[in-house]
Amino acid sequence: MLSDIYTEEHRIFRETFRRFVAAEITPNADAWEESGTVPRELWLKMGEQGFLCPWIDEKYGGLGLGFEYSLIINEELIRGNGFGVGVPLHSDVAAPYLASYGCEEAKECWLPGCVTGEVVSAVGFSEPGAGSDLAAIRTTAVKDGDSYVINGQKTFITNGYYADLVVVAAKTDPQAGYKGISLILVHKDDPGFERGKKLNKMGIHMQDTAELYFTDCRVPAWRVLGEPGQGFKYMMEKLQQERLEVCIKCQVMAEECLKEGLAYARTREVFGKPVALHQANAFRLAEMATEVELGRTFLDSVVLSHLKKEDVVRRVSMAKLWLGEMVNRVAYQALQLHGGYGYMEEYRICRLYRDVRALSIFAGTSEVMKLIISRDMGLRE
Amino acid sequence: MLSDIYTEEHRIFRETFRRFVAAEITPNADAWEESGTVPRELWLKMGEQGFLCPWIDEKYGGLGLGFEYSLIINEELIRGNGFGVGVPLHSDVAAPYLASYGCEEAKECWLPGCVTGEVVSAVGFSEPGAGSDLAAIRTTAVKDGDSYVINGQKTFITNGYYADLVVVAAKTDPQAGYKGISLILVHKDDPGFERGKKLNKMGIHMQDTAELYFTDCRVPAWRVLGEPGQGFKYMMEKLQQERLEVCIKCQVMAEECLKEGLAYARTREVFGKPVALHQANAFRLAEMATEVELGRTFLDSVVLSHLKKEDVVRRVSMAKLWLGEMVNRVAYQALQLHGGYGYMEEYRICRLYRDVRALSIFAGTSEVMKLIISRDMGLRE
Amino acid sequence: MLSDIYTEEHRIFRETFRRFVAAEITPNADAWEESGTVPRELWLKMGEQGFLCPWIDEKYGGLGLGFEYSLIINEELIRGNGFGVGVPLHSDVAAPYLASYGCEEAKECWLPGCVTGEVVSAVGFSEPGAGSDLAAIRTTAVKDGDSYVINGQKTFITNGYYADLVVVAAKTDPQAGYKGISLILVHKDDPGFERGKKLNKMGIHMQDTAELYFTDCRVPAWRVLGEPGQGFKYMMEKLQQERLEVCIKCQVMAEECLKEGLAYARTREVFGKPVALHQANAFRLAEMATEVELGRTFLDSVVLSHLKKEDVVRRVSMAKLWLGEMVNRVAYQALQLHGGYGYMEEYRICRLYRDVRALSIFAGTSEVMKLIISRDMGLRE
Amino acid sequence: MLSDIYTEEHRIFRETFRRFVAAEITPNADAWEESGTVPRELWLKMGEQGFLCPWIDEKYGGLGLGFEYSLIINEELIRGNGFGVGVPLHSDVAAPYLASYGCEEAKECWLPGCVTGEVVSAVGFSEPGAGSDLAAIRTTAVKDGDSYVINGQKTFITNGYYADLVVVAAKTDPQAGYKGISLILVHKDDPGFERGKKLNKMGIHMQDTAELYFTDCRVPAWRVLGEPGQGFKYMMEKLQQERLEVCIKCQVMAEECLKEGLAYARTREVFGKPVALHQANAFRLAEMATEVELGRTFLDSVVLSHLKKEDVVRRVSMAKLWLGEMVNRVAYQALQLHGGYGYMEEYRICRLYRDVRALSIFAGTSEVMKLIISRDMGLRE
Repeated sequence: MLSDIYTEEHRIFRETFRRFVAAEITPNADAWEESGTVPRELWLKMGEQGFLCPWIDEKYGGLGLGFEYSLIINEELIRGNGFGVGVPLHSDVAAPYLASYGCEEAKECWLPGCVTGEVVSAVGFSEPGAGSDLAAIRTTAVKDGDSYVINGQKTFITNGYYADLVVVAAKTDPQAGYKGISLILVHKDDPGFERGKKLNKMGIHMQDTAELYFTDCRVPAWRVLGEPGQGFKYMMEKLQQERLEVCIKCQVMAEECLKEGLAYARTREVFGKPVALHQANAFRLAEMATEVELGRTFLDSVVLSHLKKEDVVRRVSMAKLWLGEMVNRVAYQALQLHGGYGYMEEYRICRLYRDVRALSIFAGTSEVMKLIISRDMGLRE
Repeated sequence: MLSDIYTEEHRIFRETFRRFVAAEITPNADAWEESGTVPRELWLKMGEQGFLCPWIDEKYGGLGLGFEYSLIINEELIRGNGFGVGVPLHSDVAAPYLASYGCEEAKECWLPGCVTGEVVSAVGFSEPGAGSDLAAIRTTAVKDGDSYVINGQKTFITNGYYADLVVVAAKTDPQAGYKGISLILVHKDDPGFERGKKLNKMGIHMQDTAELYFTDCRVPAWRVLGEPGQGFKYMMEKLQQERLEVCIKCQVMAEECLKEGLAYARTREVFGKPVALHQANAFRLAEMATEVELGRTFLDSVVLSHLKKEDVVRRVSMAKLWLGEMVNRVAYQALQLHGGYGYMEEYRICRLYRDVRALSIFAGTSEVMKLIISRDMGLRE
Repeated sequence: MLSDIYTEEHRIFRETFRRFVAAEITPNADAWEESGTVPRELWLKMGEQGFLCPWIDEKYGGLGLGFEYSLIINEELIRGNGFGVGVPLHSDVAAPYLASYGCEEAKECWLPGCVTGEVVSAVGFSEPGAGSDLAAIRTTAVKDGDSYVINGQKTFITNGYYADLVVVAAKTDPQAGYKGISLILVHKDDPGFERGKKLNKMGIHMQDTAELYFTDCRVPAWRVLGEPGQGFKYMMEKLQQERLEVCIKCQVMAEECLKEGLAYARTREVFGKPVALHQANAFRLAEMATEVELGRTFLDSVVLSHLKKEDVVRRVSMAKLWLGEMVNRVAYQALQLHGGYGYMEEYRICRLYRDVRALSIFAGTSEVMKLIISRDMGLRE
Repeated sequence: MLSDIYTEEHRIFRETFRRFVAAEITPNADAWEESGTVPRELWLKMGEQGFLCPWIDEKYGGLGLGFEYSLIINEELIRGNGFGVGVPLHSDVAAPYLASYGCEEAKECWLPGCVTGEVVSAVGFSEPGAGSDLAAIRTTAVKDGDSYVINGQKTFITNGYYADLVVVAAKTDPQAGYKGISLILVHKDDPGFERGKKLNKMGIHMQDTAELYFTDCRVPAWRVLGEPGQGFKYMMEKLQQERLEVCIKCQVMAEECLKEGLAYARTREVFGKPVALHQANAFRLAEMATEVELGRTFLDSVVLSHLKKEDVVRRVSMAKLWLGEMVNRVAYQALQLHGGYGYMEEYRICRLYRDVRALSIFAGTSEVMKLIISRDMGLRE
């Protein structure tokens, strides 16, 4: 069990962060949902207290902590209504590309800012014509002297509207299929780089999701991460942690839905007794709790493997598949237990229901997970 | 099959109304979703063309048509993106109370307006503490001379914010349980009658749903529908048509979701071919189409029985239960077929998904339907 | 509704047949399950009373009745525990090939026996390597003078062990794919025709299912049904009625499972009250009843279309898909309501559970139905 | 993970037992299914090699090993087609009552035989009128001098037909409800003790399940386990290990079903390629594998807690609920992948499908599990 590895330090960290969330995030969540973004001020405050990229080496200003601290931050953010705060994407998905594959110049330039919150990062992979199918991207980066010139378009980019630094996937060798993909750092001030409108989503409104446009966007050659043409390989290496980050979201959201459904059903009376004490509802809650418990056990087990650097492709894919569907089932039932109130935005379950709908889609749809799992079973056409 | 009873006149009526919807409703739907209401102007236009309460007797200005015309209107409204237009609730749920149980004075006063759109009607049954459990309402109406004085509160009232006339359920004999309930007509100008804020729902935003407040609201005694104390009986009589009206919504929404999912999946390519041609998706679409076809066949069969004035309590309850859940399943899968785009409000499926979530709740939750069906099977504790 | 077309004559026929079943079949069902067959004597008795192939023209000894009589026979057989009596396969699947495509000589020779029960018929299509995929059959029939010489093997042949006459699908032109398939009548006494062992199935034990072997089996050329090379077309024409026959089985079995589950749950007490009055069980029974009602309505609707000779391919496929899965769901829940007793063979639900497992497989698996439906929707790779 | 605690000794033990199973059980499984029992000879051979009750103290002839050895035995038995061998019930359910609550005389008398296989044990709790509802048992044991006189009837008793020693639950104080229940050892030779016929089950035929009858069955007072009137408490204490034993069965059976489905689907060709390579099937296999992986992870986690003597009531109940239903889902799909062959007894999946149907019922139905879980959540009417 994951709980076996938690020390007193983890407990204190969680407690500290939980208090931070209660003070700085929860009271503002509704306003941020309304405005469609989280203010930079929050990032800076989080940075100040060590809540951004805590895993980054002390040399670059980080704390050198393990992934379990990222898990704690992710969990507590959601519990405090900060599901849409783009920090996990920054800390656990985007910034790691820089740390793992960036040249020393790039790391010195931006890693410290990733820790302080002065540099918010994003990944620019998805395109209008290439979501799950990354090999199909059309954005190109053509070598021109000591620069690369980028042309193309990205979409569904989390943190896209306010990010300072984007890890962009582009084809440096368009004939070479997925072997021609490179990852390139683009800074918000680079010429030819523009953001489109914030996308209007069903939920997670405080999270700015945007389109990005590159028109003869010229960046110096050292911005390429690692080796040119190795981008697909790098993405595959980092993808597991990205999916794990979403798995955590699935699980914690399911726990929150169950909590909301149970709390409402315990207090609301109908036909002379609490909703939750009508046997059909009590049994449904038991089923929901069972699925949530299974999910937690499985997630913990995969996180443990990830901490041990084991190969988790198969099990992460299974977690993403099962948890992404499970959280939607649990949200549906938790809302149903609210009756008409569940459809009203003033009840938290209403927003949770909208928010979780993304989870069986983002970071690899359920269908893509089935593809990966079946191939891993040797079922390849 | 229902199609067997359709005549050329039905066909022409449908065609005429479809054109009306395309001209007057579809182009404005987004704006109305934004503003949270449908302008009175639309009601008046619909009234002018005979699309409101077409079943009302010619004596009161109606056309004396059958319920199948209401079905046609309901279907075409939804197909043209007017799911939230409150006309079916007015025409097929609220106004029938007036026509069936109102005194001549009341009928002459308001039925013509129901036909023209000058009088928009609503039903005021649900209360904060009594949704599915109608016998538990607390609103009282105390006889005082030739008047009734109403006190209490209603919630989840469709058309509540703009209605001119509300059929209010109140206890004229609070000791008598459900036998003490009476139905009383309240007009928007009656003293002591106030509307609360429009409720902020997950979807169906163009539909104004509101709370109503009655504070010593005094109305003349003739406003009581039928006999005092018979309100529960009247509600039970009319409930089947109300639920059938919602069943139609479920079915047509499911058909629209399937249509959207199929259209998107046919054109969008992924991994080298259209989404819909990947076998797992093709099979899923086949499953969705099968559920939609079963739903349509069952709905038609129940509507036919209703047209023949057969007792449909059991089958309407089954239809409400099954269709209310089915439409949510189909919407989930249709959205999933859209991938990330399904989560974007610019795609119709996104709104459909939010809209349909009400359908397994409103007009009797799935759980209440199971209660009715199981009792009908003789399973009464 | 189908019930609208039933006349007094149908009612009397059903009543008569029901009494026959109660007298001749129900009391012997257990013994036949044990022995793995139904005695020829039963066939002769049924023939005597007009219960075999009642649709056959009077000219050949039949009654010239409609398919609705076949439906009645199928329904009442199942209700009286004769699910495995191979009569519907004989009357509504095999014999129609002879009547529709046989030459006059063949019809005069065998149709009268099909009516009396002296000729029991079967269809020999499936092969060890070709179940759902009929075009892949390997049995060949080579023209040799005025004869055809058949070589090959069939499996899963209902009535296979005791049939007198088998409609065999064989390739008369092996190069021509499905266009080379012909249907040929083989009689049990034909040289080179042998039956293998009776197959040991999970259920439906009274039904003899067998393998057939053809070794240089020589039959006269007039045994070919219709035109050589048209066999696939004929099969496709007759397939809808075959599937409809299985759909009826699915539906009636589901009704029987519900009946058993309800009856047991009403009488058996646990924790102080009948099983069925615990709310979770009452609601489950309501869900089961709802699915059964939907199934019945859909089945009736498809049967009506079939009676009107409408094209029912899409809707029959949907019925086969949905009913085949539904009956298994309902059987599972009905057994569960029995607790430990459900697992005991002395309770009818135990046998029903085993019997219905074939229904989502035989006459086209659920997967093949999805293939047909999706192709009908234009989704063809 | 459970695998973390496995040592080289466990590995060797598993390997040894696996070879034993392959030599002694697998080749005879079909014959035992036919005969409806497992010969005593097998018990004696297992005893000789230390495979019976390996946890029993060395003082009584055992090996003093942990529950993980029982898990290994249970797993390997199933993998080798010995699902119905009653050893786990003997070793991990029945004998522990004797070891925990028996007086020294009883332990010396019978524990050595439990290890050698000379004494086969069973638990006699369920009655025709009391399965899940143990407090409702009617069997009585009346103190008479230095004896108890037992009257009553038991049913669904695993090992019931051939057991030497039965732990019988009886009411020594019929007025005291569940507080009046005592556990009493009854030996096969006790006067007034008779076995009824072997019950005819849907599957698990090699396991003898029987009714037991007690007619003025007189046993000495020292046969009462622990304190009189404490039987219900003892049962509750031991119940978790009993359920865990069944959870192991659920999980391993699900793994076997997946294995069979995958193996068949990989080799069998349809429409030109292996069944498993049709995408809809590949995805289904991925879903099955995901459920199986989740189940294994959860089971391991609960077993680990049990090994640490933690309170596992809630999580064992969840495991029994989820695994009991999961194994039935997986078996259904694995059989479906076999097409018509899945319905034939010569394919292993056919028998697996029949066998697993007991698993959501025995040792506490899914419904009873939901009751326990919901009560644990504070939902008590």
